This record gives sequence, structure tokens and C-alpha cells, in this order.
Amino acid sequence: MAFRTEKDTMGEVQVPATAYYGAQTQRSIENFKIAQDTNKMPKEIIKAFAYLKKAAGITNCQLGVLAQEKSDLIGKVCDEILEGKLDAEFPLVVWQTGSGTQSNMNVNEVVAYRAHVINGGQLTDKEKFIHPNDDVNKSQSSNDTFPTAMHIAAYKMLVDVTIPGVKKLRDTLAAKSKEYMHVVKIGRTHFMDATPLTVGQELSGYVSQLDHGLRALNNTLAHLSELALGGTAVGTGINTPKGYDVKVAENIAALTGLPFITAENKFESLAAHDAIVETHGALKMIAVSLMKIANDIRMLSSGPRSGIGEMFIPDNEPGSSIMPGKVNPTQCEALTMIAAQVMGNDVTIGIGGSNGHFELNVFKPVMIFNFLHSARLIGEGCVSFNDKCAVGLAPIEENIAKHVNNSLMLVTSLNTKIGYYKAAEIAQTAHKQGKTLKQTAIDLGYVTAEEFDAWVKPADMVGELK
Amino acid sequence: MAFRTEKDTMGEVQVPATAYYGAQTQRSIENFKIAQDTNKMPKEIIKAFAYLKKAAGITNCQLGVLAQEKSDLIGKVCDEILEGKLDAEFPLVVWQTGSGTQSNMNVNEVVAYRAHVINGGQLTDKEKFIHPNDDVNKSQSSNDTFPTAMHIAAYKMLVDVTIPGVKKLRDTLAAKSKEYMHVVKIGRTHFMDATPLTVGQELSGYVSQLDHGLRALNNTLAHLSELALGGTAVGTGINTPKGYDVKVAENIAALTGLPFITAENKFESLAAHDAIVETHGALKMIAVSLMKIANDIRMLSSGPRSGIGEMFIPDNEPGSSIMPGKVNPTQCEALTMIAAQVMGNDVTIGIGGSNGHFELNVFKPVMIFNFLHSARLIGEGCVSFNDKCAVGLAPIEENIAKHVNNSLMLVTSLNTKIGYYKAAEIAQTAHKQGKTLKQTAIDLGYVTAEEFDAWVKPADMVGELK
Amino acid sequence: MAFRTEKDTMGEVQVPATAYYGAQTQRSIENFKIAQDTNKMPKEIIKAFAYLKKAAGITNCQLGVLAQEKSDLIGKVCDEILEGKLDAEFPLVVWQTGSGTQSNMNVNEVVAYRAHVINGGQLTDKEKFIHPNDDVNKSQSSNDTFPTAMHIAAYKMLVDVTIPGVKKLRDTLAAKSKEYMHVVKIGRTHFMDATPLTVGQELSGYVSQLDHGLRALNNTLAHLSELALGGTAVGTGINTPKGYDVKVAENIAALTGLPFITAENKFESLAAHDAIVETHGALKMIAVSLMKIANDIRMLSSGPRSGIGEMFIPDNEPGSSIMPGKVNPTQCEALTMIAAQVMGNDVTIGIGGSNGHFELNVFKPVMIFNFLHSARLIGEGCVSFNDKCAVGLAPIEENIAKHVNNSLMLVTSLNTKIGYYKAAEIAQTAHKQGKTLKQTAIDLGYVTAEEFDAWVKPADMVGELK
Amino acid sequence: MAFRTEKDTMGEVQVPATAYYGAQTQRSIENFKIAQDTNKMPKEIIKAFAYLKKAAGITNCQLGVLAQEKSDLIGKVCDEILEGKLDAEFPLVVWQTGSGTQSNMNVNEVVAYRAHVINGGQLTDKEKFIHPNDDVNKSQSSNDTFPTAMHIAAYKMLVDVTIPGVKKLRDTLAAKSKEYMHVVKIGRTHFMDATPLTVGQELSGYVSQLDHGLRALNNTLAHLSELALGGTAVGTGINTPKGYDVKVAENIAALTGLPFITAENKFESLAAHDAIVETHGALKMIAVSLMKIANDIRMLSSGPRSGIGEMFIPDNEPGSSIMPGKVNPTQCEALTMIAAQVMGNDVTIGIGGSNGHFELNVFKPVMIFNFLHSARLIGEGCVSFNDKCAVGLAPIEENIAKHVNNSLMLVTSLNTKIGYYKAAEIAQTAHKQGKTLKQTAIDLGYVTAEEFDAWVKPADMVGELK
Repeated sequence: MAFRTEKDTMGEVQVPATAYYGAQTQRSIENFKIAQDTNKMPKEIIKAFAYLKKAAGITNCQLGVLAQEKSDLIGKVCDEILEGKLDAEFPLVVWQTGSGTQSNMNVNEVVAYRAHVINGGQLTDKEKFIHPNDDVNKSQSSNDTFPTAMHIAAYKMLVDVTIPGVKKLRDTLAAKSKEYMHVVKIGRTHFMDATPLTVGQELSGYVSQLDHGLRALNNTLAHLSELALGGTAVGTGINTPKGYDVKVAENIAALTGLPFITAENKFESLAAHDAIVETHGALKMIAVSLMKIANDIRMLSSGPRSGIGEMFIPDNEPGSSIMPGKVNPTQCEALTMIAAQVMGNDVTIGIGGSNGHFELNVFKPVMIFNFLHSARLIGEGCVSFNDKCAVGLAPIEENIAKHVNNSLMLVTSLNTKIGYYKAAEIAQTAHKQGKTLKQTAIDLGYVTAEEFDAWVKPADMVGELK
Repeated sequence: MAFRTEKDTMGEVQVPATAYYGAQTQRSIENFKIAQDTNKMPKEIIKAFAYLKKAAGITNCQLGVLAQEKSDLIGKVCDEILEGKLDAEFPLVVWQTGSGTQSNMNVNEVVAYRAHVINGGQLTDKEKFIHPNDDVNKSQSSNDTFPTAMHIAAYKMLVDVTIPGVKKLRDTLAAKSKEYMHVVKIGRTHFMDATPLTVGQELSGYVSQLDHGLRALNNTLAHLSELALGGTAVGTGINTPKGYDVKVAENIAALTGLPFITAENKFESLAAHDAIVETHGALKMIAVSLMKIANDIRMLSSGPRSGIGEMFIPDNEPGSSIMPGKVNPTQCEALTMIAAQVMGNDVTIGIGGSNGHFELNVFKPVMIFNFLHSARLIGEGCVSFNDKCAVGLAPIEENIAKHVNNSLMLVTSLNTKIGYYKAAEIAQTAHKQGKTLKQTAIDLGYVTAEEFDAWVKPADMVGELK
Repeated sequence: MAFRTEKDTMGEVQVPATAYYGAQTQRSIENFKIAQDTNKMPKEIIKAFAYLKKAAGITNCQLGVLAQEKSDLIGKVCDEILEGKLDAEFPLVVWQTGSGTQSNMNVNEVVAYRAHVINGGQLTDKEKFIHPNDDVNKSQSSNDTFPTAMHIAAYKMLVDVTIPGVKKLRDTLAAKSKEYMHVVKIGRTHFMDATPLTVGQELSGYVSQLDHGLRALNNTLAHLSELALGGTAVGTGINTPKGYDVKVAENIAALTGLPFITAENKFESLAAHDAIVETHGALKMIAVSLMKIANDIRMLSSGPRSGIGEMFIPDNEPGSSIMPGKVNPTQCEALTMIAAQVMGNDVTIGIGGSNGHFELNVFKPVMIFNFLHSARLIGEGCVSFNDKCAVGLAPIEENIAKHVNNSLMLVTSLNTKIGYYKAAEIAQTAHKQGKTLKQTAIDLGYVTAEEFDAWVKPADMVGELK
Repeated sequence: MAFRTEKDTMGEVQVPATAYYGAQTQRSIENFKIAQDTNKMPKEIIKAFAYLKKAAGITNCQLGVLAQEKSDLIGKVCDEILEGKLDAEFPLVVWQTGSGTQSNMNVNEVVAYRAHVINGGQLTDKEKFIHPNDDVNKSQSSNDTFPTAMHIAAYKMLVDVTIPGVKKLRDTLAAKSKEYMHVVKIGRTHFMDATPLTVGQELSGYVSQLDHGLRALNNTLAHLSELALGGTAVGTGINTPKGYDVKVAENIAALTGLPFITAENKFESLAAHDAIVETHGALKMIAVSLMKIANDIRMLSSGPRSGIGEMFIPDNEPGSSIMPGKVNPTQCEALTMIAAQVMGNDVTIGIGGSNGHFELNVFKPVMIFNFLHSARLIGEGCVSFNDKCAVGLAPIEENIAKHVNNSLMLVTSLNTKIGYYKAAEIAQTAHKQGKTLKQTAIDLGYVTAEEFDAWVKPADMVGELK
């Protein structure tokens, strides 16, 4: 490979001749040979930086500290980054400095050098028209840009991927709930037979879980909409022009179409990432819900002959390499694995968040890496689960009817007629003798056949249906 | 010990002669010999049950399914429980059935039998005036009472202990922030010297963390205010009179003075405890903040002679059994240990929440046990930290001044004058030669002495002070 | 209450007149009002201190730095502590200084003052015959005594409670495995019907899990047997006589009957508690196993009429306050809740362990609190589960036979005869048409009736039985 | 793109014309659109499958159920996989079926079709010489191959990357410990000044941590060396020839050079992944140690002028985009982020491990994904930290000397001369009056100048140096 010589404040470095990045990026490649093939800094962070650098350029220009021409050039390169044209220029990994300085500099270098080339220069020119620190990073520090990029990337992922994914699944389940609202089935508590409810009611619980989850997530967005930018090195805003923080947040909001505002306290925004902890707490809550829902569905669909077998799920692929004809609840499995991942990520994020010291938290890359991982997994996992499983859910009415009619817990409706203790005696006796509830109830002399038929009706035991 | 014979639907059991509880409580004592001396069902849950049982009695009476006399008696015993007069009657542990049925029955038994005695009966009477299941538990199931008690206990703890505790600390830190807003100190990022800020600014970051934490916690209260009561066995509300769920929630709200409402979906309320997961997520976020704050304070107060030594903290006790005269940041240590506990509790709660199956989550006791533990620890921990540490915080101005004046990072203010690269050269040279910034800057010929003095002023580097 | 005045190096304190403890204990009561009714320093730690203080007294005497008379007196009080006679003298909570200094001083004070009284003195005597620091704490620091007490308490709990509890359950399951080794049942993978195995084989998997868990736990004991004592303040052993560390460990080993040795590196023993992290990792692994086992058993016993219903579990109590006659797998629920607790505790311990700084980890109390909690819960939980559930496990052969004979996955034995693809066609066709495997196989013309009967025998599909 | 038509038991699928994989791989691509660009099934698992499939082919041949020619062809393709020649043929992601069936089939398809091509066939041939299920997967099921691949990949990663990485760092620290064994420095407990120790002693604690960690990791390898292969569908070994399990493990051991054996209980090996939980517990312990070590080093190197400043660390890159000349402990930051990641991964793995049901755990892919992630991060993180930081560690003796000589805690050596209380008075008085210990001790009349000089010598307070 051909190289060119680049320089930073520590000296000279050899960089691939055609790379738009410079000395500091190269140093990071060499200094952090950790999971270089699998743990790249997420591309969402790079794109968030593109929004940010463009907005900073515009704001600096508006406030008179950067020439229009430079601002335009910076914006042009940022647009290229957003279009994915420069993906190969961002080779750094998550496991670098905890402030993300090296990724900030990677962006600064690429924007500066690519702008210089757009402007007619050469990568080998000693002086570039745009300087990574003095121009691209003007009125900024890694310490406020990286957390800003974290919030932009996180918020965007939630809005673009996570929330639509969860909503899609929620809507399918709501439709199924409505469709099967009158299919009476046995309830199960402690895994044991309980009083009846309808398939639609059961599904409505899942819908309610996701509704609450989406509300919880939404509640956290205000904190996440606060941007650190303008705090620079330690939160004081050193080296920024007056009014910069408010203005740059407005520009970012305009560019992204998202309701970003400047943070109410920049010291908090740099030294802590409680917004990431907070929002991921809501993602974890959704993961907890998804684990429950997917577990239920795989257990309800268990069988086909020796399980519960009350719910049909689509057959998407051969289930076994050795057992011919086997079909498995594979979408449930992917979703529960995702839930486990998100629950672990939550711990990583909490540990990272708790270990900020003084003016700067230096667990930034690991926090946003895990956040984006979770947010994508939940969103895409819900879509996959929806499209390949939930849309095809259907009750297997034959098994459902058999189970509900057999159940000893129908006896519960006798509580208010003959009292809990006599009702219990009926159920226990029927269980021991392997007889029906009705026969046992009559045999014990507690009700007549007519009373039993009048009082013990599964369909009357499910309450009002909405 | 003397015993009397009690009976439930499974047969006879020997119960301590004077105990107000009955057969099912006794069975649980014998069946669950697990941490019986240390892991009792939290007393807050018992008190929540007292509110609940009283409200249910009132509601049942209002709806015509329970006699006024019985409702009154039930209410009387519940008041005794709330006054703490019957504490010894609740011997069960957390590690019981996952629905909390046994604690529900413990309360049912104690209320029924104590009511019977208040009514002039004897514990040995075969028939009691009030029946544990048919009267005290009327229109209820463990499956809806226990989650209701969970929400009542959790909400009350937050309002009585957690939120006031966090607020107290927040207010002290806010006052300190104001008081020391003009004390300029060195900032630290990556543990390394950075540009200056003021003590008040640094403290304002902590205040902002706690403000955001309190807001996050508050955002979760709507979900927590939803009560499962009225769902009974599986969420359908079997064996409840019409209108019961709304009314009983109103009665609980009236008794507790807290804004409880009936849950929008009872299936969710029984089968999942996402509200507990959600709210504890906010507690975990606060724990993360407290870890950061307490860590900072202990590091700032480190020394007294060989540490950072910028913050005075009160001496509350001799610090060492071997090192005479040693004083340690013990309140910081208690608080960070609490943070670690809460972060672990969050995992337990998530695992419990994710493992609900079908119509019932059966990790209820462990979830609320951990929730209440965290909520109390945060509240009482903040009060302790506030009273014994935060109120006495004071900057050690001599050390602060020495540190800020020495710092090489004051060079940052030259960026906008001479560019980042030359400024870096000054800092690096000063560091290598062990000289002052000013001397080095002049020696390198980048600025004059006058320029340096005009441009490099720590007090000008801290931005606008609020 | 009557008080007396006590003094420490910080001044005077009022102490309850009859308390054996002194000023530093009292200060801690007042300084740490956090969960004082529920989170006392575990009594196992206090007893571990009794072993330690006695051993230190003996060793100091043997090495000529403490009078025999004093050593004897110290030993006498320690014996009283071990007998539980002085329980009320240890009122401190977990949430104190992170080194446990205050609990060390609590013990020092109680031993000194009680010894003084045994020796004929009065609590109000200004000078005591035995001094808390200079005698009871001789050749010690909190920094080496508390970690030593952690290891003693942890090791003892494992040996006394945890390991016997797990073994008891393991042995019951092993006996059941043997007893039911020939009961052929349907296997289930992905919750779906799979090829058969026997009940005994299934149970043998649980036995193997616990065997591996016990081995894993055992593997960690060597690290846990290392004692910090002799390291004193920072690990250097300042103020200890020559040979003290080895000798005192021998004395502790003799007193406890456990194989304790002096730590190979005292700096590690004070600054880190990786042994606690390591051993609790094994406890967490066992918790993971128990979660799986208890989950399986509750699912296998689900029903009684609308679930899987293949395993009988004992009825220990009425299962529902509203559904008469209901029986629930309550021991499974207690055990899975315990597993969730232990998994959360593991995170707390990891966070505590990772946050040691310089020469001392100051998360000691929270780490050992969680460790002992887990170790007790696993031990006592296994005994409860064993005694009230596992011993009564029995296959429900009628359901088992029905399930295995119905299963489509018996087709797997045809793979080696007619190939995977044709076998799959048989299973899928039988499933779609609701027919038996045999009929379908013949109809498709792939096998004759005789071949089918000869090749498809569940009992031949379970391999060699051990 | 051109396509060809492939078929599996569920019907036809369009597959890229030149892909070696077939219908089932293609179905998985379409069914699981989850993180397809970032969460590929780890390549280590694919390579582990190559060892496994080759070994299975050899064993099947040796036991007479597979033709030599087929075994050879299978082996040839496996070698190509191991050489990385077929990397593009394995496009599946982690988020698939929880048994990893689709990745097993991906390998089966690629091996069969590539073998067919090597054998002179065409991808479009309807019948292939080698069949994915009947030949490549002979005597296997996903249920035993995937866990086998998990153990092979995990063990290999530990031996190739993790253990050497940790050892490298351990050895550097051991050498530094020896080198600086006589540099006396102030100890710090609770972040506060304590009695002295040497730099070498402090570092020896880190070495001991890593030694214990490596031992702990080593202790878990026996469990990890057990291979599931031979258990097939549910652990019974259906469709395997006699002696297959022992033999195939021997062949895998021979091919990999690692001490694999057949699992003592195949039911455990399929239904649980406690070995993964166990070994990752040791990785988590090491992460905990690394967090402590890296934290210490960054705090010791803090400054350069306003921190502790006792330890020099190499300057690898410019530290700040805004603060010129700043150098940060970036390797410490990468390592502590890694520790946080591993601690979260541990939770994911525990949750996955605890949720196996009946005969199969279906969290296999997420468990091994997290395991391999942790194992690689620790190994490569230690190497990076070693090469770019640890090798350059050096005490800054000027600051060290200043700190140790100032410290009030030197007074501890007077305990055994004048008692703890008088020593405390000296330290407190010196602290209040800002005087030296010596002056204060003399002023208080407790020692003479000569006594002080004789008794208070930092170098005498550090114990015996090894």
C-alpha cells in the first residue's frame, strides 16, 4: 500500500495515501487493536457527527467566527457522509479513548481533508484550506461533540427503528386481540389451570404492555433531546461565541427534524450520561415485556401433539437437522435472545454511567455502542417477529375448547353461590376421582344439575369484553 | 407453646394458641424455612394490604355484597395493622409462592380472626363471624391483591422516603452550588487537568443529575398508580360486582391520599409487573447518579496531604482502627455501596419481570422486596449523606488556587488567538521543561507577556455564571 | 434510657448505660440511619470476627506481644459471641464505612468492655483492663480483619448451609433418576415435541448440572481459604510481629475446622475481593441451574387437566384465595425467585469488586452481605425444595404414555432407513391430515406396516440406559 | 443477481446462483432481518463447525456408516473453511433460532454443495453426491453440534487470545513490580493517605489478582472440555453408531490439539450451558480485576500538575480536540470500558443459561456471541493495554517522595510505642495546625526528636520485601 506522511501535535505518522483521514485516526488504529473486525464505532454515530459538524459550521458562520466558504465546504462533506459515500474513512473501534476523542478527530480530519480536495487541493498539500481542529472542530470539544452525537444517534434510532418496530407489533397484536375477543379459553396461573378468559383478552395484556412500554420510552425523550454542544471542554463553553449553544441545537434540530434543544446544564451533559441510562431503562422494560410475550406464545403453540397447542404459529423453515418435519417457534427464540441481550446491555450502560469522574464521563463509546445495539435489536426484532410470526397467529380452537371444558377451575364461579370451602371440596374430589366437576358437584349434593349448568358457564366467567 | 387446631381446605393444622393467623399462614411457615430471620415479607406490603382490605370491605359494602357490620370490623382490624399493633402476626417470608398468595391469606386470616375476637368471639370458635376467604377476600384474589399491594407499598415508599430524601440532598447541593459559584478551580477530564470551572458549576452538574432523576422517577408514577384490584383470578374480574374496580381504586386513593386509579388493562397488571420494572429503572438511574456524585466527592476530598484535597468533608468518626487520626469519606462509601445494591436489584427485578407466564407473573414477592429495598436505601441513604456529609461540604480554597494556577490547560484560551497547534506546543514544552506556561509561551515567541496576561485568565475561562 | 459517657479519639459520646459497646459503635448508629431495622451486619460476620479476635489474641500471646491473661479474657468473650449471648451488642448496619471499620470497632469494643466486666470491672471505669485498639485489635487493622471475617463467614456458610443443601437436592434427584430410568417419555426441544427419552434420563441432566455446580463451587474454595490477616493497614503488615500472618491463619483454621491459610499476597486481599467475586460466580451458576430445573418441573407438572401434566408434585397448601382446590408449584416459585435474587446479587458483587481503589476496596460490607444472602438462599432454598417438592416427584405415567405415543417425532428413527427428506414428508403429511405416523408412512408407500413396527419403537430410541 | 432454485423439506427457494449454501440458509436470511450488517454469527463458530464436521465425517467413516470418499470430501471442504476461503458463504446472524439449527444447516449445505463441486458436480445438479442432512449431518443434530461448536470456539478463543493476553499483561506487571520493589510510596485507603508501601508491592497486588484470575479461568476448563456431540436430538444419541460419542471427541481433540472429551451427561450438555456460564463467570472476575487495575493506574497517573501524579504512562496520541498538549490515560479507558462490557455480557449469559427448557436450551447463539465477545475483548484489550501502557509505566519519584514524607499516617508506627490514642492526638493536632508530625509529636511531649527519627521511618514501615 502507498502511504503519505501526516502530522499532528505529537509528530509524523504514515497514513494510507488515499485515505481522507489523518494522523490521529491512524494513531488510533495502531493503538487500539481490539476487535477491529467486529466492533467498529457504529455508523449511526458517524452520521450523527455529520449532522453536528454541519450544524456547527453553519452556526459558527452565523455567529461570524467561520467564513461562509468554509462552512459550505464542511456542509458538503457532511452531506457525503450522510449519503454513505465515505463509510470506509471511519475505521476506528469502540474500544478507544472513553471520550470518543479519536472518533471526533476522525470526523474532523475526514471533513477537513475531503473539503480540501473538493476545494481543489491535494491530500499531500502541507497546508490544507480547512483545518481539522481550528475549523471543523471550531467552538467544539470532543467532550461536548461526542455526547451530542450520542443523543442524536440514539434519538434517531429510536424514532426510525425502535418505536416503529414496537408499534408495528403492538398494532398486529391489537388487531388479533380484537379478532379473537370472543374465543373463550382456559386461563393459566402458576402454569396451572385457572379460570377462563378469552384469547383476545390475553392478547390485550400484551398490547397493554407494549403501550406502557412505548409511553415509558416516550417519557425519557425529553432528557435525550438535550444536547451538550456548547459546553466544550468541561461544560463552561470556553472558546464558543455568545449564543452558540442555543443556536447550534436549533440548527441540529432543523437538519434532523427532531426536537433537540440545548442542555439545561452542560456540566451534567459531559460528566454524566444519565439520559442514556434513563432511556435504556425504558428499552430494558420493553425487552422484559417482549420476553414475556414471546415466551407465552411459544408455550401456547407448544406441541403439536404433546404440548399445550392452543395457538398456531407460522412454519417458516424446517426446524431440525435431525427430526424431520419439526417446526419450531424460531421468531420467539430470536426475540427472547434479544431480550436477554438488552438486559445485559442495561448493566453495561449502568456501570458505564456510574463511573464518570469529575467533569467527564469516559465510558461514552461503550455506552452508546450498547444503546444503539439494543435499540436496533428491539426495533428490527419486533418487525421480524411481527412479519414472520405475529401476523400469522391464530387460535387452535379445537384444543382450546377441550382445555376450557375440562378445567376444574370453572368451580370458581360457585364461590359466590356455595362458598369457597365447598367449592374447593368439589374441585379436589373431582381431581382425585378423575370425574367431571358437574358430576362431582351433584354427587356431593351441593348443587343440582340445573344450578350447575346455570352457574358454571365459561363464557360468563370472562367479564365484560371490550 | 400452646396450640389450637385450625383448618383449611386441605385439612387441620396446629397453630400457636394466641396467634391471630390460621392454617394457611402456619403451612407457609413450615413449608418455607428460607431466611426466616432476615427476609420477612416487608412490613410496607402488610400495611398496603391493610389499606387494600379496608378499601375492599368498604367497596363491597357500598356495592351491596358485604354487610356494613362486617365492613366496619374489617376496617377496624386494618387500622390496627396500620398502627403497627399486629406486627407479630405476619411471620411469612419473601420466599414463598410467587403470587404472594400466602401473605394475602395471612392478612385474610388475621383480619378475619382478629375481627372475630373484636366482635366478642374466641379464636377457638369453630365458626368465625368473619371468613378469611368469603368475607375479607371478597371480590378479590391473591392475583389482584398482591400486585395492588405492591403498587401501594411502592408508591408510598417513593413519596414518603425516596423522593424527599433525594430532594433534601438536591437542595443542599443546590445551595452549595450557589454559595461557591465564584470559586474558580481546575477542571478534570480523564482524571487529567483540564480547563477551569467553578466549584459551583461543578456542583450544579450534580444538582442537574438529581433533578433529571427526580423527573424520570416522576414520569413513571402514572403507570405505578394503576391498580390491579378488580381483576381477581386472571384479570377478567370474575366474582366482582359491577363497578367494583373503579370504586375500590377510588377508596384506596382516599385512604392513602395517593392518586391511585384502576388499571387500564387488568391482564397486564397480573401477568406482568412492568410498572415495577419501569419505576425501578428510574431508581437505578438515580443510583447511577449517586455513585458518580459520591465518587467525585470522595476523590475531591482525598488527602489530606497526598491527594487532591480540594473539598472539605465533615469528620464524623475515627476512620481507622490502626491508623490514628485518620478520617475517611464514610458517607460516600455507604452511598456508593447503596448504588451497587440498587444496580444489582435492578437485574433481579428485570429477571423477575421477564419471567411471567400466561395470566400471572409469579415473581411478585422478590420483585417488590427488591424494589422496596432500593427505594428505602436511596431515600435514607440520601438523607444520611446529606446530613452527615453534604451539609458540611466546603472548598479548600488554598489547594484549589494552587491547582488552578499550575495547570497547563489554561493554554486552551490561546486556541482562538494562535491556533491549536502552537498552543499544544507551548503546553508540551512547558510540561517537558517543568516551566510555567507563561514563560514557555514567551520563550517560544508566540505571545508577549502582556498578551499572555490578558488572554489567559482562569476566571475568564468559566463562562457565564448562573 | 440511662446512658454513660464513652470516649474515643474524637471526643465524648453518650452510650446506653448497659451496652457493652462504646463510642465508635454509638457514632455509627447515629451516623448511618439507613435500613436499621432490616439490614443489620449479618450475624455470620460477627461470629467470624469472634473466631478471628480469639485467634489473634492467641497468636499475639504466642508471639509474646500480649499477656496470657488478656488473651484468655478475649477468648472468653469471643466464645460468648459464638454462643449467641451477646447478639444485642452488634446493632450496626451494612451501610456504614466501606471498610467495615465500624463493625470491627464494634467487636473490639464489646470484647474489651465485656472482658473488663468478666475481669471484675465496671462499664463506667475510666480505664479498662483491656483496650479495644491496643489489645483486642493488636496486630490488626479493619483493613485486614474485615476481609478475613468475610472469608471465614463465606466459607463457613458454604460448608454449613449451601453445599449440604445443594447436595441434598442432588441426591434426591439422583435417586429419582434411577427409579424412573425406564419410563419412556416424549422429549421436548424448543417447547415442541421431539424424540423420546426416559424420565430418568431427563432427571440425570439436572443431577449433572448440580454435580458440575458443586465442582465449580469447590474449585473456588482455594482462593476463599486465603486470609488477609497480617496485612494490617495496607498489606505490608505494619505493627505485626514476625510470623504472625501464618500463625494466625493456622489458629483460625484450628478454631473453625476449615482449611484456612494466610493469603499469598496481602495487597490483593485488601485492595480486591476477587475471591468473593469468583465464588459468587459459582453460586450464580448454581442459581442458573436451579432456575432451569425448577422451571422444568413446574412446566412438567402443569395442569392438572389443561397442561403437560407429566409430573406429580406434592400439594403443600391451598394454592389460591379465589380458585378453590387449586394446587400450585410453590416450591418451584420460591426457588426461581431465589435464582433471580442471586443473579442480581452477582451484579452488585461485581460492581463492588470492580470499584476498589488503591490499597483498599471499600465495598466490603455490601459484597459480603450479598454473598451471604445468596449462599443462605441457595442452601435453604434447595432444602425446602427438596423436602417439600423433590422427594415427592413422580411421573404421571398415563399422560406420559399418551404423549409419547402420539408424537410425530418418532419419525426420526426412519432417517437412517429412508432418509431425512422422506421421513419429513411423512411427519408433515400426518400433521396436516391429523393421522398417525404409521398410517401416513404406509399410505405414502415408504414403509410397510411391519417395517414401521420394527423400526419405530420409542423404547429403542432412548439409547443405552445407565 | 442470478439465482438458482434450491429445495428443502418445505419447498423451493431462490438462492444466489453462485452461493454454496442452499434453501435453509436462504430462508434464514429472509426470516431474520435483524442486525444483518453487524451481528453475524461469529466466524469462530463457523470454524469450530469445520473441525466438528470433519471429525464427524472421519468418525462416521471409522465406524462404517459413511464412505471414505465422502468423509474425505467433507474434510476437504472443512479445511477450506478453516483457511478462510469460504467466509462469504456464512451470512447468517446471531438472531435466529435459539438452537443454532440454521447455522448448522448453513454449514451442512456449504460442505455438501462445495464437496459436490470439488467432486466434479454442478451447483445446479438436482441430486448432489453429498447430502447436507444424510451425509454431512450424519450422526448429528443441531442440538448436539451447536453446543459442541460453542465449546470448541470458546476453548480455542481462551487458549489463543484470552489467556495469552492476560498473561502478557501479568508478566509485564510482575517485572515492573520487581523493578520498583524498593520505591517507597504513600499508601491510600478510602482514597485517603495511609501508611506507606512500595510501588512494587502495590503492583504485586495486581499481579496476584491476575494470577488468581487465570487460575479461576483454568479451573473452569474441565467443564468446557466436555463435548455434547453424540447426544443428537435430545441427548439419547439416537441415530448414532455405537461408540460414536467418545470417538468423535477424540477426533476433535486430535484436530484442534485441545483436550476435549465426550460429555459425562449429554442431557446436561444440550439442555443447559452451565459450562459457558461457569467459564464466563471467571472472565467476569478477570474483568472486575482489570477495572480495578486500570482505574488505579489512571488515578495514579492523574495530573500532570493538579492530580496525584505518581505514575508515568506513555503518551500515545493527542488527548483532546480542544485542549492543546493534553495527554490522557486512553488505554485505561478502553480497558475499563471492556470490563463494563464483560460485566453486562455476564448478565446476558446468565439469563440465557437460566432459560433453557426441557431437553434444549434455545439461547445458544446469544450465549456464545457474548462469550466470544468477552473473551476476545479481554485478550486483545490486555495486549493493547500492555503494549501501549503497561510496558511504559514508571514511578514519578519526585512526587512519590513528596507525598510519602508529608503523610500524617506515618504516625501509625508510634502505636506500638505510645498507644493508638496518643498517636491519634499527634496526627489530629498536626493536621489542624498544619504542622509536621515530628514537630507536633515533640510539642505534645510524647516522643523526643531522636525517638521520632528512630521510630518513624517510611522504609521501615513496608514490611519484608519479596
